[in-house]
This record gives sequence, structure tokens and C-alpha cells, in this order.
Amino acid sequence: RSWVEYDAQCDFPLQNLPFGVFSCSQRGPRCATAIGHYALDLALLAEHGFLQGLGFDERRVFRQPALNAFMSLPRPAWRATRARLTELLSEGDERLRRSDLRETVLRPLQEVKMHLPAKIGDYTDFYSSREHATNVGIMFRGKDNALQPNWLHLPVGYHGRASSVVVSGTPLARPRGQLQKSKEDPWQGSVYGPCKLLDFELEIGCFVGGELPPLGRPLSIAEAAEHVFGYVLMNDWSARDIQAWEYVPLGPFGAKNFGTTISPWVVTPDALEPFVCATSAGTQSEPQPLPYLQEENYSSYDIKLAVDLHTPSKAGSEKVITTITESNFRHMYWTPRQQLVHHSVTGCNMAPGDLLGSGTISGTEQRSYGSMLELSWRGANEIPLADGQVRKFLQDGDVCNVRGFCQGEGFRVGFGDCSGEVLPAGTLD
Amino acid sequence: RSWVEYDAQCDFPLQNLPFGVFSCSQRGPRCATAIGHYALDLALLAEHGFLQGLGFDERRVFRQPALNAFMSLPRPAWRATRARLTELLSEGDERLRRSDLRETVLRPLQEVKMHLPAKIGDYTDFYSSREHATNVGIMFRGKDNALQPNWLHLPVGYHGRASSVVVSGTPLARPRGQLQKSKEDPWQGSVYGPCKLLDFELEIGCFVGGELPPLGRPLSIAEAAEHVFGYVLMNDWSARDIQAWEYVPLGPFGAKNFGTTISPWVVTPDALEPFVCATSAGTQSEPQPLPYLQEENYSSYDIKLAVDLHTPSKAGSEKVITTITESNFRHMYWTPRQQLVHHSVTGCNMAPGDLLGSGTISGTEQRSYGSMLELSWRGANEIPLADGQVRKFLQDGDVCNVRGFCQGEGFRVGFGDCSGEVLPAGTLD
Ligand SMILES: [Ca+2]
Ligand SMILES: [Ca+2]
Ligand SMILES: [Mg+2]
Ligand SMILES: [Mg+2]
Ligand code: NI
Repeated sequence: RSWVEYDAQCDFPLQNLPFGVFSCSQRGPRCATAIGHYALDLALLAEHGFLQGLGFDERRVFRQPALNAFMSLPRPAWRATRARLTELLSEGDERLRRSDLRETVLRPLQEVKMHLPAKIGDYTDFYSSREHATNVGIMFRGKDNALQPNWLHLPVGYHGRASSVVVSGTPLARPRGQLQKSKEDPWQGSVYGPCKLLDFELEIGCFVGGELPPLGRPLSIAEAAEHVFGYVLMNDWSARDIQAWEYVPLGPFGAKNFGTTISPWVVTPDALEPFVCATSAGTQSEPQPLPYLQEENYSSYDIKLAVDLHTPSKAGSEKVITTITESNFRHMYWTPRQQLVHHSVTGCNMAPGDLLGSGTISGTEQRSYGSMLELSWRGANEIPLADGQVRKFLQDGDVCNVRGFCQGEGFRVGFGDCSGEVLPAGTLD
Repeated sequence: RSWVEYDAQCDFPLQNLPFGVFSCSQRGPRCATAIGHYALDLALLAEHGFLQGLGFDERRVFRQPALNAFMSLPRPAWRATRARLTELLSEGDERLRRSDLRETVLRPLQEVKMHLPAKIGDYTDFYSSREHATNVGIMFRGKDNALQPNWLHLPVGYHGRASSVVVSGTPLARPRGQLQKSKEDPWQGSVYGPCKLLDFELEIGCFVGGELPPLGRPLSIAEAAEHVFGYVLMNDWSARDIQAWEYVPLGPFGAKNFGTTISPWVVTPDALEPFVCATSAGTQSEPQPLPYLQEENYSSYDIKLAVDLHTPSKAGSEKVITTITESNFRHMYWTPRQQLVHHSVTGCNMAPGDLLGSGTISGTEQRSYGSMLELSWRGANEIPLADGQVRKFLQDGDVCNVRGFCQGEGFRVGFGDCSGEVLPAGTLD
């Protein structure tokens, strides 16, 4: 228990201690942790000596406007920091509680502005939920060829656009681009216009960290866990009509690069450790992966995930909230460690601050599908909203909020919000 | 003419003045131009007042270890810099020629180390030579469906890996990864091993610059030319067997991200202006592109391109040089301006230092194909080397060097080398 007060539904109890970057009216962007309803300023804490003896230059590392310097340290440095913060915030520890600094370093979350947690060097998106890949496969290729032949052998992924990863709260304009003119005949070409099939993808992002091998030296699966700094919620916004026309043969491009939203607080593997669980696959035995991908502790985390749509009500300007899907991080076939190892297998150099998207996380039940493409089954079904309206895809003014937490006994390890509003096309011109 | 002496075959005459980053035994990485066989230190030149009055903080900008700060300035600043350098280096101008500084700022190219010209935020590779796309299409889908339906409507591209873009001279280890077990039946899965079908791709890279619009605001075609900072040679190394297995349905990944080599000197559109020419398509009329892609001055540059293989001789350790292909930048259907505009059409934010690869540049003749995949027609034919040996794909110890220049009257605007050696798999472990 902490001397900072919060209730059992709070995302940021003492057991969590995620890392992030905030600024406030008095101070520019700096590293922080979250405790209860406060951001705790690690730069100021370091400056006043509370973080001495952790084995690195804590004053330099935490006054950065991004976590990259901290992420570059080896895992023991992250753990030592977590241990120190746990001490300082625990009931009975009076050092910070009785300090003059207390009011200055603990800033109410509603008064701070959150930033991207890291400068993302490269962003990669995977496709690692078997249920999602199967759903998409059935829709586009039929039941018999739902999974491609390579899917069970490697975590399929593609390079994404790092510059357009934005932090929760950033509104995005509906993208415009090329749409196939005739639904039946692609040879008729395309027209230009706003996306009509705008979608979200419910994902978890994984931030890479530690001292990584240079170009040409792959990571081993035994090393992988040391290089997972932590996790965020992610919405990989997708323009389905633009995607369908452009993606052959080199993959999604403009349909994805208009924006990817992540939650600002990076939750560490240490905080998630009590929630390790079997994946819904249980084991990877049919087929066994190649040895470089075989994970001794093949597992996931029991992270309860949901997507809320906040939709404009018919009458006024208030929004109506509907939870349109509930999924779980268990529904991952390939783990973030396997994704990381596979990413480097041909020699690709990974860097602290790289972001790996899990891929859309869908469960087996229709209620647990991680995209509107699946929820509406390609537009065949209407998704009911709380006020009686319906959706097949996102409309202007809709806010999409991804939520996630692990349920402990009497506490939650939560991720906070991962939210973004859809603005009408052209709003930002 | 310049007071610096060089011959007519020199890549870096007064008409070129490319930008790059070098270091030497005395000084760390800093911005430079090339003249004759020298790198001219722009940081020192700025420090000593030779670059005053250009309208920006030249001391800060040129002492950076990357061109990004310079690339971030608007095009008039690049042009003013070029004009000043042209003055200072022209015959008759005695300011630098008679200065004590002359020996210090002009460093022989063979004594300096060249670095990546920019910190590359995002790297994107296109697929914009019609001949290359047609060749690949014929090989994998047959003559009748060679070009996909979208190809003539948009510059197809995919996000690449920025971290593994390396400068000319960097050796690369042969990548290892998953190879399809049975050639005929993908359902038999994969084996792990070194790539057997290692290839180059002859490309031109385009560096983005200027003050770019924020996320959500696409670039117009009228603005595009202002945002091309300059061009480099590029080798998009490709592992064809790894690619064939992994790329469905999200595009190439590990088959590309083990390394991409670029030449160190960025040649500006101003230097290339005298070499503007029609593309081999001439016009884009069947079909006309959508208005957002229609370019008033649809054109390319007459850049003569070649790839030399330096292969180990049978006997000793010397290498035998064979020019295995000669192509031209004219063989581009989509221009870098169109690629840039299309990249941002859905709202993707571009940044100074972003790198756009042209795609493999193949001509119509077999001698002009830009990859070994095409030259050997998927391994069906042997490519003869100068010493009587043959190749279908790259072997360990081969050096692949991409060269390029524009031929003026009595001078060349050249790009220098874009070279890399293939090391045996595992060498860098
Ligand atoms: Ca995705
Ligand atoms: Ca390429
Ligand atoms: Mg995205
Ligand atoms: Mg490459
Ligand atoms: Ni609470």
C-alpha cells in the first residue's frame, strides 16, 4: 500500500508504476511515473537526490523529454528504479511524504499534459492474433484458406510509419485517398475521396529497450525478455477501403500511416508479472516453431481489453458511450518476445524506443473482435450503440477509446486511456 | 570552372556541390560539400565567416553530425548556400583560395570517413519503374496480369526500416531466416538457414526537406518540388527466398530490413536541373493519374546508372570487376514528387531527413535490369562475369557497387560510390 490515496479501480496503484513523459504549466517535458491520480516528476526527484545510487546518471536520464535514455539502460536499471519508487511511495516511508518537495513533484494528472513516451525510431506492426487473422482470412479468402501457409511459422509483420504515432487525446482527420471505383472490377481504377470505411484496431504496443546488438547480429529468444521495456495500448487506425485498393502486393501504406494512437504510460513487465497466463493457444505444437522462435515460457498476460465508442447523440452535443468490444491480450498466438526475435532474425538492428504493435487482438466470440471490420463482418451487420443508433464503421465525431487493465486482488494494474476523436475529412488542412 | 583542380570524369565538379557529412582524424562528424577530390568542411567555413548572410544560423546548422538541420530550412536557404559555395570555389575568386584556411577546410576524400548524410526518421521504398514491376509481374503471375490493377493509378510503396540504412562501404552479413521448405507446396512449412538468393536492387533515394505540413494536412503536387532536398544512389539489398515466404499478405519484412546502402553525397535538384528529360513513359495518359498526382512538369533526370560486381577471382584475393547492368533514372514511371505527394495523401506527416526509395530501376533491355532476379530471370539464366565465372545471385565476398552520373559537356555530375560487400552468414555474430 502507498501513502498516496486512490481507490481499487485506479489504473495506477503502487503495484503498477508505469513510466511516461509529462509537462505542466511550470515545467517542460520530463520523465515521470504515475501513482494514484498523480504524475510523479522523476526529473525533480532525481535533482533532489531521491534517486541516487541506482547505478546510472539519474539527473541526466530523467530530465529528457523522452524515455529513450532510460530505455537504453539495461533491465537491472529499470528494476532498481522501480524498487526505489516502490520504497519511496510505500506506507511507512516518510522521506518523500514529509518532504517539502511533495506538492511540487506530485502533479494531479488532470493538470498535466502527457506526451509520447519515447522518440520512436522505427515502428513495426505485427498480425499475431490467430482469431483476427482467421476472421480476416475467412472474409477475404473463405473458410478453407483462412490462414496463409506462413502464418503459423512466423509472426507476420510489416514496417509502419513512426512519424505518425501520436499520443492519446490527439484528434485525427478522416483520411482521404484512392478508393477502388467499381467494387467488382479493379481494372476500372480509382476515385479520390474521403475514406468511408474508417476503422480502429485494438492492439498492445511493446517498447523495446536495453543494449541491443548491432546490425547483422540477431537477438536470441533467451535474450528477448531483457529487451522488453514495457507495454502501451494502441489503436492502429485503418482506412479499409484505401487499404483494399493499395495493399497489393507490398502491404498497407496510406491506409495506416495517417495515424496510430498509443496510451502515454508504459506499463512494465515487472508490473504485469503477476498476471502471466497461458495464451488461448496454450502451446505452440501444431506446428512447433523453428528453434529460434521456441520460447521456454511461452505465455501471455491476462490483460482485459475493451474499446469504448463515444458517439454524438442524436440530440445534443453530449456523447453516448458504448463498449463495443471486450477482448484480452491472452488471444495472442505470437508473443512480443517472439516478434522481437523474428524482427532481428535476418540481422535487423533494433533500438531502444522502437515500437512493436501486437496486431489486432480478437477473441473467438463475436463480442471480442478487435476491429469494426470484424464486428460488422465487413459491413454485413450493424453494431448497436447504447442510444439505439448503430455503426458499421467510424463516423465523424466518434471518439474511440481503448482501455485495458489487469485485475489483482483489490487493485488493478491499468493502462489509462488510448483515445482519439475522428474529425471530418479536411479539418486540419 | 573552379580553382580546385579535377578532371572531366570527376564526380564532383563545381556544377555538382552535393551535401554530405564527414569526419577525419582531427574533427568529428560535420556537414560538407564535395569539390574535385576534396571534402570542403562547411562547419569550419561557417565558423570563419565565409558563409555569413545566407539567412540562417550557419554556424549551428553546419556543425551538426547530420544534414537534418540544413534540410529543415526552406529551399531558398539551400540555394543561397549553393550560390555562395559556387562563388567561393570559382576561378577568379581569391577569398578562400588565398586564405590560410584553405588547407584545413579542404580535406582529401581518401583521408576522410563519410557518414550517413542524415538521421533518417522514416524510410519508405516505392516500386515505380514500370519495366521492373512488369518483369516481376511476368515472372510471378504471367504476362497477362503482369501489372496489378492499382499500379498505373498510384505509386505503390511500403514502409521500410530506417535503422538499417547504412552508408556506402558498410559490409553486410548474408541474412539468415525462414525459407520455404518445398518449392511447390508452401503448406510443408519452412526451414531456417542462410539466404540462397541474395540480390541487390538498383535504386535512387530521395531526401525530403523543407518546412513540412503537420499530421493531417496532405502536400499538394505544386508544393512537392520545394520538399525534395536531393538524391543519393541506393541499393535495397533483398533476400529473395526469405521474401517469397514471408511477404504474404503484408509485404516484405526481414527480406529487406537487414540493410539498405546509400551513397554519402546528396546531389541537389539544382545540380540535376540541366539533365531534366522525359521519362521513358513520356506522358502519363493511359490512364491519367487523379488530379492530386498530376504533375505539370512530368519528367525525370538523365542519370546514367550502373552496377559493378567486384567478385573474388578464382586464383587470388584480387577482385574482378564486371558491370552487370546499365540503367537510367529515366525509366521511372512515378516521379519522386508524385511519390512524396502520394505518401502524404491520407495525412501522413513527412519530415526533413525522410528517405524515399525510387524502387528498382529497370529499362526495357535485358542489359538494363536493376536486379539479379531480373538479370538471371529468377535463376533461369547465368550472368557472365569478366573472368568467365558466372552468377545467378550474390555470393559471399561479392562487392556490389552502384554508380551514377549525368554527362554534361566536359563535366559530370556524379554520385560517387554506393558499395557494400557480402560477408558470409554469421560473420557479425
Ligand atoms: Ca494492425
Ligand atoms: Ca526496392
Ligand atoms: Mg496506424
Ligand atoms: Mg533494404
Ligand atoms: Ni481512481
